Amino acid sequence: MNPPLVEVMRGNAVESIHRGAIAVVDADGTVLASLGDIERPIFPRSAVKVLQALPLVASGAADQLGLGDDELAIACASHGGEEIHAQTAARMLAKAGLDADALECGAHWPSLDTATRQMAARGQAPSALNNNCSGKHAGFLCLACAMHGSGPNLRQYAKGYVGAEHPVMREVTAALQATTGFDLVGTARGTDGCSIPTYAIPLRHLALAFARVATGIGLSRDHAGAARRLRAAVAKAPYMVAGSGRFDTRVMEHFGERVFCKVGAEAVYCAALPERGLGVAIKVDDGNTARAAEVAMAAAIEALVSMNDADVDFMRDFSAPTLRNWNGIEVGALRAADALRSALAR
Amino acid sequence: MNPPLVEVMRGNAVESIHRGAIAVVDADGTVLASLGDIERPIFPRSAVKVLQALPLVASGAADQLGLGDDELAIACASHGGEEIHAQTAARMLAKAGLDADALECGAHWPSLDTATRQMAARGQAPSALNNNCSGKHAGFLCLACAMHGSGPNLRQYAKGYVGAEHPVMREVTAALQATTGFDLVGTARGTDGCSIPTYAIPLRHLALAFARVATGIGLSRDHAGAARRLRAAVAKAPYMVAGSGRFDTRVMEHFGERVFCKVGAEAVYCAALPERGLGVAIKVDDGNTARAAEVAMAAAIEALVSMNDADVDFMRDFSAPTLRNWNGIEVGALRAADALRSALAR
Repeated sequence: MNPPLVEVMRGNAVESIHRGAIAVVDADGTVLASLGDIERPIFPRSAVKVLQALPLVASGAADQLGLGDDELAIACASHGGEEIHAQTAARMLAKAGLDADALECGAHWPSLDTATRQMAARGQAPSALNNNCSGKHAGFLCLACAMHGSGPNLRQYAKGYVGAEHPVMREVTAALQATTGFDLVGTARGTDGCSIPTYAIPLRHLALAFARVATGIGLSRDHAGAARRLRAAVAKAPYMVAGSGRFDTRVMEHFGERVFCKVGAEAVYCAALPERGLGVAIKVDDGNTARAAEVAMAAAIEALVSMNDADVDFMRDFSAPTLRNWNGIEVGALRAADALRSALAR
Repeated sequence: MNPPLVEVMRGNAVESIHRGAIAVVDADGTVLASLGDIERPIFPRSAVKVLQALPLVASGAADQLGLGDDELAIACASHGGEEIHAQTAARMLAKAGLDADALECGAHWPSLDTATRQMAARGQAPSALNNNCSGKHAGFLCLACAMHGSGPNLRQYAKGYVGAEHPVMREVTAALQATTGFDLVGTARGTDGCSIPTYAIPLRHLALAFARVATGIGLSRDHAGAARRLRAAVAKAPYMVAGSGRFDTRVMEHFGERVFCKVGAEAVYCAALPERGLGVAIKVDDGNTARAAEVAMAAAIEALVSMNDADVDFMRDFSAPTLRNWNGIEVGALRAADALRSALAR
């Protein structure tokens, strides 16, 4: 049973509690810090989008299609579905000679509430471009373009790209397997929110993959170059990877290439910390992403990234945010549990 | 450490898990079933609104102001902020000679997404009437009207009614103390989302209060009559207590007076089951209301209410809902953990 990672305070009392596990690993696979069960395979969901985007660059697709930083960043994104995100995904698709009809991620209203209300006020309905995964899927379709060529049959070739046996998804899964070093053939498989397969992988292996992304050590030359380019692209276009008010965007706007972090559904969080060559992987047992996984990741960044006073001030909003009610009255706070702080301090 | 109550499946694997505790108690205070720690005080939040509404009826305010079933029901509600909810709360306030300016709950966009998008499409901004607690607060103001009289100074008298020391809130807290039988003076106190105090109370006492609401046993004559009337009002106007698509509304539309259930923030759930004279109280440790507390309460209703085949079919959507992704593909399911089923079967 996993220990508490994050506590929710109301007044002076603990109102709710989030248990989970965290692994901090270097590129040699050494576990430098951990808490909870880091060997149990968990579905990493969207936290591994940067690993799934490696073939987009490694295949040469990004160069062939002239993808820029914003496009590479959104290929690694769970974005807020804002206008600029939808436009960027559409532009990628156009470069591959495709449009939103080729997307197989499904449509949903923007994750960002204000974007939803703006669309509703304009009488618009959401499309697959507003799906938080539209950039990742546009990346898959760009990869399809590189694998098949941009001829008139591309649309037909790409059809069903979300399926585990499609050549595009095989490439994506191979990158996941190579970077994590975990056998995906024998592990549990589920279907993700955007219809691609998600494979259960232990936190220790996920953290290893992100240490490899941070350093290039243990990756093929192509993957190492792709990882470097994707990290640089996200550092230059952090708004694309999440959006207004979001943890990943704000933290990467602040730290640039010093932190690459990516949230996933059901409270998975992964990070690559190049300065110390570390990878971090977190899973909160109950799947609470917005407050639990974020506070845990903030605590990890605080412990593992060298910080000046301004950095420390900046991170406090994420690692110990105040909770206010509808009248703006302070009613409580989130905080990293002592067990998590202690594990990270080792 | 509390055992699992609800599991989240993706494919055939458990993706996330929700721990917590449940108490099933009769009006004599006998614990008929339980799981986890039912003695630790927890903040009951909105799950106890029916207890907080007892003075509205017991004081004679409801009769003096001619409140109908829909108005009494919304006094016990965490509603979706739909137009009909806002109108009903406004009508209550008008009966007390007040308007939305007297509400101290704060404003927020409707909890129901479609209601938010409709308001945005019309260019409207939310008011305190859309706050999920506006009916409860309108009830407090009707109580203020009865306590002070409807004269020109009512607005001044009512000001600050959300404060623990205000005469109105003292009445509300006294009802909470009387029905739960728990000393609220010495317990932890927090501020709720709508700015009123919330007092930490053990699940065993919360379940006892709801067994008393179910039966009238152990309540003062005034409270017993008020509880009967509020239960009947909610059974006649279940849309008012929650709204479109919501668990409480759908379940009480189906079962009528056979089930009174009320959700609260941070995954608290209470129910009164008059047929067997039982009270139920649930708290999920991690505060996940929408999927964890609801599935746990559905399992409790299945186990504790006598059901025909149609009832069983109806409840399956709540106790074992299928999870679908943005393409409508079945990706998993929620289920009550074995430990919960076993505890309830005793």
